[in-house]
Amino acid sequence: MLYSKLFGKTVKTAPKDAVADSYKLLYQGGFIRESTAGRYFFLPLGQLVQQKIMKIIKEEMDAAGAQEMLSPVLHPLSLWQETNRTKTTGFELMRVKDRNEAEFALGGTAEEMFVDVVRKFQLSYKDLPFNIYQFSTKFRDELRARGGLLRVREFMMKDSYSFDTDEKSFKKIYEKMRETYSRIFTRMGLETVVVESDNGYIGGEYCHEFVVESPVGESRFLVNPNTSLAIHTDIVDKKKITPDERRKMVEKKGIEVGNIFQLGYYYSEKMRDALFTDVDGKRKPFYMGCYGIGIGRTMATVVEVHHDKRGIVWPKSIAPYLVNLIGLDLTDAGVKKQAEKIYQKLSDNKLETLYDDRADVSAGEKFGDADLIGTPYRAVVSKRTGDKVELKKRASSETKLLSIEELLRISC
Amino acid sequence: MLYSKLFGKTVKTAPKDAVADSYKLLYQGGFIRESTAGRYFFLPLGQLVQQKIMKIIKEEMDAAGAQEMLSPVLHPLSLWQETNRTKTTGFELMRVKDRNEAEFALGGTAEEMFVDVVRKFQLSYKDLPFNIYQFSTKFRDELRARGGLLRVREFMMKDSYSFDTDEKSFKKIYEKMRETYSRIFTRMGLETVVVESDNGYIGGEYCHEFVVESPVGESRFLVNPNTSLAIHTDIVDKKKITPDERRKMVEKKGIEVGNIFQLGYYYSEKMRDALFTDVDGKRKPFYMGCYGIGIGRTMATVVEVHHDKRGIVWPKSIAPYLVNLIGLDLTDAGVKKQAEKIYQKLSDNKLETLYDDRADVSAGEKFGDADLIGTPYRAVVSKRTGDKVELKKRASSETKLLSIEELLRISC
Repeated sequence: MLYSKLFGKTVKTAPKDAVADSYKLLYQGGFIRESTAGRYFFLPLGQLVQQKIMKIIKEEMDAAGAQEMLSPVLHPLSLWQETNRTKTTGFELMRVKDRNEAEFALGGTAEEMFVDVVRKFQLSYKDLPFNIYQFSTKFRDELRARGGLLRVREFMMKDSYSFDTDEKSFKKIYEKMRETYSRIFTRMGLETVVVESDNGYIGGEYCHEFVVESPVGESRFLVNPNTSLAIHTDIVDKKKITPDERRKMVEKKGIEVGNIFQLGYYYSEKMRDALFTDVDGKRKPFYMGCYGIGIGRTMATVVEVHHDKRGIVWPKSIAPYLVNLIGLDLTDAGVKKQAEKIYQKLSDNKLETLYDDRADVSAGEKFGDADLIGTPYRAVVSKRTGDKVELKKRASSETKLLSIEELLRISC
Repeated sequence: MLYSKLFGKTVKTAPKDAVADSYKLLYQGGFIRESTAGRYFFLPLGQLVQQKIMKIIKEEMDAAGAQEMLSPVLHPLSLWQETNRTKTTGFELMRVKDRNEAEFALGGTAEEMFVDVVRKFQLSYKDLPFNIYQFSTKFRDELRARGGLLRVREFMMKDSYSFDTDEKSFKKIYEKMRETYSRIFTRMGLETVVVESDNGYIGGEYCHEFVVESPVGESRFLVNPNTSLAIHTDIVDKKKITPDERRKMVEKKGIEVGNIFQLGYYYSEKMRDALFTDVDGKRKPFYMGCYGIGIGRTMATVVEVHHDKRGIVWPKSIAPYLVNLIGLDLTDAGVKKQAEKIYQKLSDNKLETLYDDRADVSAGEKFGDADLIGTPYRAVVSKRTGDKVELKKRASSETKLLSIEELLRISC
């Protein structure tokens, strides 16, 4: 990509409400822009990161045997009435009527929708278990949105729903999702604590949050550093932790990036015909679970964890580009030609490159922009580098002069 | 994918309102299910096709220099008021209020949103032209939905918006989009006629529909078979076609799968600050265009064009799987082992395979399901095939006995 043609270039200032570093840097780097409070545009750089996060999630979900599908965004309100969630959810639920006065909920989560599509089929124990998921826009009518992607009113979410014959079979899926989620976050450079939590308006008997420790997080939990037992502060009293265990636990704060819920029969017993035919010929309710990851919040969390005072330091796995190729002295025809040749070679070798081809911008400004945007590598071509390239890792201050062949050996 | 574990298997009957072949076949094959009228679930098979369509569009849009981004689904109504489209759009526009009484439109198209994000930057002629696009859910509060994906109330759409300094520069993008669209549809097995059309509520001075001839289509147009000049019937009178030309034209009917619009200054002059700094230092309004493709309708159109009485005949480019591997006599341990080995080999060679591993279903039923689902190849392993595989193309009746090595040479 030619930086001169990229829509969404860097800017020097950030909005006044940009308290979190992630918002400040994602704004200044040209990744996101606010539409109205809590609703964001993902600019081309931000969308590249969002898609890489989604690709990792998809790879791991598919490897765990889950199947991607897609449900409508507008949910018939009658489904939410079937489970009484129109009453238990409260204000966060947005509603809309069509021209025929049919009422819909703007989906916040999609348990009822997935049960509804599953009950359209006559399923037997032979079809089970399965785990179906989607990536789709979700809505939460939050009273207050925080600036940036940490708490928003509209966001891309991966939500999945598992259907089993019984609790024993379900527990295998739940455990597999727990491992899958840890692996997903690890691949993005996030270390997560698995915290036993409150199930909120989702329902069910138990659930776990995946939390990344961070001072800007809103999830408070207690953790025993020896056993790694972690419990949300909200439910510590309910869980009756013994004083001895309690003393060993320390309080932490973090950002919730994903969660997994046991649902049991919470939905299948409230919704009619949410049944399968078991081996004994009887019709029985599905035993369910659900599993969510917020894409935008995950992206912001990666930035909270991976940045320095000059900008973002993207992990390779989700960086918008691998290399920021900087051309200096581009008014010199020879340097320009060399820079373009290297850009072409990098692209031919599928090393994703953002080429800063601006001729009227100073070296200092280009270096500053590269640090802010945060690609894993910065490669400089100038009068001084001759037929070589000066390479620097974003996280290091060391530079190396490489031949083009050596440059092409950098890894994704 | 193991067919026994696929969510969304084939069924024998179709809904009574399934008049169009595409709806009947996509329903029976297990690709889609209706939620409420005009809103559809894409089951795993349908979502695979939808994603392949989106991948082709993305490849071609990126090759044409366009940049993907993402805008919120809820548009501040104030933006639609800025262009007066709250009045010109009419009933199709759905509105919703949040808990703070802020009003939003559920996006049908996103011209105002894209102008709004662009005007957040201080752009100059050096940043232009650019073409930015998204894939996102769109809403149309249609009075009547037709059964199936041909006319719906909620759908995935690729919409793009180009920003230029002037008409001359714009015309190059418009022409590039025209070529890009033709190539996109050709790659999916669709031959399109480019029809001059009415711009509806979008605005601007001229536009073209990409239409696939079909008896179930709702677009009526006149075409001169010699010159390939094609005009929507609605605007023939307005265009003052001379009687001589008019006599040579024949009337046709087809499905609109995409459209491209010149917008000119329609939006940039109505919305404040939709300006760039030109080479003369003056602030001038952007010259714009927009370009849309409905993903679900495209999918239905492919089925309308590519099917026979037994089912769908997917073009390879967007088939959910390349091969339907059918195991017969699977109660025989040797055959079962051989079938699993071939499934593994196909998967290892990245030949996407749906393996019908059901042990309790007749050969006839499996063949019927394979024809209905419509993968380009059907491969059969049975007692009779020994260490070979019986291969048949979906569109042909000829079968061939191949070795595994020969089977692995079939192309995507």
